[in-house]
Amino acid sequence: MKVTTPQGTRDFDAITVQKRKYILNIIQKQFELFGFQPLETPAMENLSTLMGKYGDEGDKLIFKILNNGLNEASKAEKVEQGFREVMQGKNNVNITERALRYDLTIPFTRFVVMNQGTLAFPFKRYQMQPVWRADRPQKGRYREFWQCDADVVGSNALLHEAELLLIYKRAFSLLGIPQISIKINNRKILEGLAIAVGKQELMVDLTVAIDKLDKIGLEKVKEELIKKGFTETDWQLVQDFLQIEGSNEEKLEQVQNLIGKNDITLKGINELKEILKYYQLLQKDTANIVLDFTLARGLNYYTGMITEVSTAAVAIGSIGGGGRYDDLTGLFGLKNMSGVGISFGIDRIYDVMEALDLFPKSLETGTQVMFLSFTKEAVPQILEYMQILRDGGIATEFFVDMGKMEKQMKYANRRNIPFVALMGEDELHNGTITLRNMKTGNQEQLKVEEIFSAIQNL
Amino acid sequence: MKVTTPQGTRDFDAITVQKRKYILNIIQKQFELFGFQPLETPAMENLSTLMGKYGDEGDKLIFKILNNGLNEASKAEKVEQGFREVMQGKNNVNITERALRYDLTIPFTRFVVMNQGTLAFPFKRYQMQPVWRADRPQKGRYREFWQCDADVVGSNALLHEAELLLIYKRAFSLLGIPQISIKINNRKILEGLAIAVGKQELMVDLTVAIDKLDKIGLEKVKEELIKKGFTETDWQLVQDFLQIEGSNEEKLEQVQNLIGKNDITLKGINELKEILKYYQLLQKDTANIVLDFTLARGLNYYTGMITEVSTAAVAIGSIGGGGRYDDLTGLFGLKNMSGVGISFGIDRIYDVMEALDLFPKSLETGTQVMFLSFTKEAVPQILEYMQILRDGGIATEFFVDMGKMEKQMKYANRRNIPFVALMGEDELHNGTITLRNMKTGNQEQLKVEEIFSAIQNL
Repeated sequence: MKVTTPQGTRDFDAITVQKRKYILNIIQKQFELFGFQPLETPAMENLSTLMGKYGDEGDKLIFKILNNGLNEASKAEKVEQGFREVMQGKNNVNITERALRYDLTIPFTRFVVMNQGTLAFPFKRYQMQPVWRADRPQKGRYREFWQCDADVVGSNALLHEAELLLIYKRAFSLLGIPQISIKINNRKILEGLAIAVGKQELMVDLTVAIDKLDKIGLEKVKEELIKKGFTETDWQLVQDFLQIEGSNEEKLEQVQNLIGKNDITLKGINELKEILKYYQLLQKDTANIVLDFTLARGLNYYTGMITEVSTAAVAIGSIGGGGRYDDLTGLFGLKNMSGVGISFGIDRIYDVMEALDLFPKSLETGTQVMFLSFTKEAVPQILEYMQILRDGGIATEFFVDMGKMEKQMKYANRRNIPFVALMGEDELHNGTITLRNMKTGNQEQLKVEEIFSAIQNL
Repeated sequence: MKVTTPQGTRDFDAITVQKRKYILNIIQKQFELFGFQPLETPAMENLSTLMGKYGDEGDKLIFKILNNGLNEASKAEKVEQGFREVMQGKNNVNITERALRYDLTIPFTRFVVMNQGTLAFPFKRYQMQPVWRADRPQKGRYREFWQCDADVVGSNALLHEAELLLIYKRAFSLLGIPQISIKINNRKILEGLAIAVGKQELMVDLTVAIDKLDKIGLEKVKEELIKKGFTETDWQLVQDFLQIEGSNEEKLEQVQNLIGKNDITLKGINELKEILKYYQLLQKDTANIVLDFTLARGLNYYTGMITEVSTAAVAIGSIGGGGRYDDLTGLFGLKNMSGVGISFGIDRIYDVMEALDLFPKSLETGTQVMFLSFTKEAVPQILEYMQILRDGGIATEFFVDMGKMEKQMKYANRRNIPFVALMGEDELHNGTITLRNMKTGNQEQLKVEEIFSAIQNL
């Protein structure tokens, strides 16, 4: 019998769990220092909450849950009809009413709308939970993966943008990831570009095309835009826009000269200036913040600043992203509730840290001391010692299935246990423990209370 | 538009998340001190991994996930046929191949079998994750709920039983839950009872009936057993067995006198004696351990010691349970791998702690300091102070959407923020901050570096 996990899903063993927790704890600490509070939502949402929020492609990738009770004969006709509809790509409540969450943003939005009467706004929450997508599994892309988001809704203040960028800066710095670049842009400036070429109605097509620049290059972006109805003259301006270079200040000046005649562009520029000013007041050094007008972000709901984080140290794409959205809660009928949020790409951050060997070695140690023995007489003493160590905070085990020394040592090695405590007749008689450092092979006879400092010293 | 969570599922807001984490952290710490290492498995398992493991009723309660790509026309016939089968309560891989995990035991077992070549045995793992069941939702019963398990497989040593019981004792004691009773029994003694009445083949029926004793009483248990084929004479012995009372030692003596003539009973008695001996060597005081021959546990896979925890302080049923199983991995073809495990009922433990008001008040505080201001000139100074406090580990926010003092104060109150830091023209001029204790209303003007001790003192 072959047993596996479903395609695109993973088990996390002890070391992987500890490494993932290490990442999540560092990020969580920053979220909390900046006033974000935790939220957890159910894995399932009503299908109606999710459908239509992620585009047609997204709808197809939502994992739908089969209703229970499908075997009740009384419902047979309805169920058959429902199956036919599901086959046509429609939804039918007789077959499926629930689905697995596809991201954390829509459940968060649903939560805010559902609890609007009791929440204090601005509402700041963070959320770290798995999401599920029926994507074709491939290297680095899973059907179950973690998202790690912080959002604030109910405030237009641009200080939030600056604080979220600073959370990126601080978290990645504490994780030890080098050469971090936090790119920012503003959707209003992209809209300003569409206005400047006289095609505001094609703003979405323009954004979608620019979003592909990294992958397909300038020529293909041009092709796509021409296909969508942009002219060669339009393209000249778009190309000049995409090729703006220099310091953040120089770029802002150039974009203003290029397309700054309309209010939307100007508003976008002023927002970015204010965000940079706040950031500088908080942090002094803006070295990691890189203004990049080619940054577009795929999701349509962004309306203000957008951001994306990457490291030059590993070629893996973005490891975080986010932006401001002016009307997300409008999806569920709650209007005029502007928000801004960021997301950490935990799986990719994990891969980056592995590639650069950035995890502390201590995460690989679970149990610190394992008692071994070859004489039954020592058992009562071992149990007493074990509890003394555990009460002192040292994770301790006893290899109780006595056997060959070699076998016991091998087990301690495979478990990556750094210290073995040997209890033979001598030790029992002397009231000591022989503590063996499994790495160096050094041994010394110690009293139980000396174990603490012996372990601490390493 | 009405937006809700699916029936039987819950959002956890900030305070609830913190309280749940408080419980989980205490338990996790004990698991790790005793050498258990974390494992996380995917929310989805292959349907074939889960089906047939929880009985017919269980199979019905498994949430099945609809395959994606059902709208491909080429599959229409297969899919229609599949739907008909699903309607008859069968499974069909054209419709559903995956399901949500129903407990943590089967995924753990699947993991052990899948990784048998690389794991070091005995393998000790803990796992704290949600599970999903299509049960009818009712008070205290959810469709998404958390399990929190520790298991060791690959060792017959009874020290593991004693250590797991001690983990219960220590964790519940650290959680502050009073009047904890850790009941133990042994499936071998129940088997011995079936042998003593000459009906070993009815062992499962006997166990199932005794399991209901608490709910239905002696008379109904008798009725059920008579219906299953036990005689009045059999019942006399069963009744005597169920009514054994006294200290743990007295009970063991009585059960030996009553049904101790067969080897299985004797083995069961000796196992319990050894477990109690180990426990006493570890812990001295066995006050919480209560031998209870009426304890049966529903799950059929138990073969040795079984345990169940409750508190006399709140009438809520068991808040933990577990036992030894000799052949769980045999379900997936790996024989002779004995294991023993316990589970903490997180949702009920949460309810008990709420009922007894046992959560530390500090869990209700997220952000510790909120800056308020009524003058734009103070903003640069506030941002600088904020970063000093955050760097010192104090969660700090700034109510940046300035407005009426009353509104700002109200917000701080609703957010349960204990300190408000006021920055007006005076403070800006003096280089101070007015720190207001929101509970007492006391205010004092402090330098930023004095804030730390002012907060610490409370």
